[in-house]
Amino acid sequence: MKLAIDAMGGDNAPEAIVKGAVLAADSIDGLELTLIGDEEQIKPHLKSQSNIEVIHTTEAITGEDEPVRAVRRKKNASMVLMAKEVKEGRADGCISAGNTGALMSAGLFVVGRMDGVERPALSPTLPTQDGKGFLMLDVGANVDAKPDHLLQYAVIGSIYAEHVRKIDRPRVGLLNVGTEDGKGSDLTKKAFQLMKDAPIHFVGNVEARDLLDGVADVVVTDGFTGNVALKTIEGTAMTMFSMIKKTFMSNMKTKLAAGLVKNDLRGLRSQLDYSEYGGAGLFGLSAPVIKAHGSSNERAVLNAIKQACEMVELNVTSTIAQTLKEMQSKEEEE
Amino acid sequence: MKLAIDAMGGDNAPEAIVKGAVLAADSIDGLELTLIGDEEQIKPHLKSQSNIEVIHTTEAITGEDEPVRAVRRKKNASMVLMAKEVKEGRADGCISAGNTGALMSAGLFVVGRMDGVERPALSPTLPTQDGKGFLMLDVGANVDAKPDHLLQYAVIGSIYAEHVRKIDRPRVGLLNVGTEDGKGSDLTKKAFQLMKDAPIHFVGNVEARDLLDGVADVVVTDGFTGNVALKTIEGTAMTMFSMIKKTFMSNMKTKLAAGLVKNDLRGLRSQLDYSEYGGAGLFGLSAPVIKAHGSSNERAVLNAIKQACEMVELNVTSTIAQTLKEMQSKEEEE
Repeated sequence: MKLAIDAMGGDNAPEAIVKGAVLAADSIDGLELTLIGDEEQIKPHLKSQSNIEVIHTTEAITGEDEPVRAVRRKKNASMVLMAKEVKEGRADGCISAGNTGALMSAGLFVVGRMDGVERPALSPTLPTQDGKGFLMLDVGANVDAKPDHLLQYAVIGSIYAEHVRKIDRPRVGLLNVGTEDGKGSDLTKKAFQLMKDAPIHFVGNVEARDLLDGVADVVVTDGFTGNVALKTIEGTAMTMFSMIKKTFMSNMKTKLAAGLVKNDLRGLRSQLDYSEYGGAGLFGLSAPVIKAHGSSNERAVLNAIKQACEMVELNVTSTIAQTLKEMQSKEEEE
Repeated sequence: MKLAIDAMGGDNAPEAIVKGAVLAADSIDGLELTLIGDEEQIKPHLKSQSNIEVIHTTEAITGEDEPVRAVRRKKNASMVLMAKEVKEGRADGCISAGNTGALMSAGLFVVGRMDGVERPALSPTLPTQDGKGFLMLDVGANVDAKPDHLLQYAVIGSIYAEHVRKIDRPRVGLLNVGTEDGKGSDLTKKAFQLMKDAPIHFVGNVEARDLLDGVADVVVTDGFTGNVALKTIEGTAMTMFSMIKKTFMSNMKTKLAAGLVKNDLRGLRSQLDYSEYGGAGLFGLSAPVIKAHGSSNERAVLNAIKQACEMVELNVTSTIAQTLKEMQSKEEEE
């Protein structure tokens, strides 16, 4: 199995990316990696491993680049060359911690969509209180989703959760403004009807309030709402950590208390750190494309690589394609 | 000034509602209140105040009632009679802590829309780190919003923030998936263009991640997204408090720390308690209708009553109507 990695994407690139790749190349049997980026910056962090290859380029897409334009114009950017490795069959999947919008464009325009998928979805696994996590899709690839798109996300998410996350009969929920059937916007009402008849374990509408309690293993929503929900979770958690910190620094007594619980609170923080679950999948493309979190450290990069490996090994992409095809022919029969 | 109050709505009704009303009747000059509900349950919590009147009814709308049907069929429900007091000119505004959907229906079908407003918006003031709070609208009255509706919300929210919350030139932001101009869904792209030309201090797109940091004084969004954002904030905060509690109870050392910071953490909790800012306004109706939080205690009820008083005293409803009318005639001229 061969994976291509954008060595220049993310806040800690290339060091964290290369070190994560080195860990993966050491620990995963039969894995070959191609790192794409500035050789001079990459080399110092490499060990002499025969299963890591480097493709040199000095061009890179930054966080400030306008996604679609950057992918079209920066033809030698590390991210674009990475996607080309997949497109041209030299890699089975790819990983980048760079510009999310640009990765979605590279996925769509270079790697290409899977047959039968109308719109790819960006799908992170988010933390829950019980540590099991849930997959949310879409969180921003497709901000003007149609009911059909949500149906496809439900099926794709269910297959991923079952195969890669090893969840038996994953519970698929539709993010909505109330739990009762018949609630919601025009979009969610229509999607609800479609999901009811899909080959998934549909648990109905779920509310945003219950997400972190693990109300479903897969939460389906349009890219606009999903993006807002994801960023609201992040923002609220960050605000609360900062308020807790302030509270602990407010006087002698609280400072003393802070010393006593410091390590335990760090544990709480890592419980909410979703890079433990790997990166966000860009599902619905013809090969696994993984978006590692922008602030990924080497461990998060390792997890994202493992995730791509599992997707390749377990043929998740072809299982998704096959299932969607069967649904479509069944629909045509009816 | 006279306000009608649904004494039977909310988790702590009628006790908390009546006690809140008693506090308000004591402390606000020139205020007359009409409490609607079961006299037998209300009386024990009343003091002998000449400015509180009771309208007796035993019918009530519960949290399980289907909103539209309940308002139509339960013609003597405390909430419906409350709205009727406003409709028939015997009250200048009303407050309920009951079923949110039913209150929106009662507002729409009994109190009635303001001339020129297409869809009312439900608008709570949410907490920010700096304690100033921000108004978000809509959080669920109108789940299939059009660009024009968002424009009206922007204007309504800005007027409310300026007059009632006394914010000079309130910053109005559009909730979106990115801060750059031109980002977003079809709806937000169109709303952005309309808001740019509105008589407000428009600060452009804001992201969900920055809401609790006070990135804007008024945040405009469609009812579906707003509802999800609101419930995500609540859910994430509740989950974190529960995780913090577990962390503190994990061993002797953390239990000791818990004792030292207990009071300070309680302060943090109240900082996030948005009933301090009053209830959620149902804006765009012909009179002030306030939804107090379902779990309101007497203090929260008092705050909601104060809020309704300010809206009446400061003529917020007619300022909104006047502004929207001017915008419309300007548009027709062009």
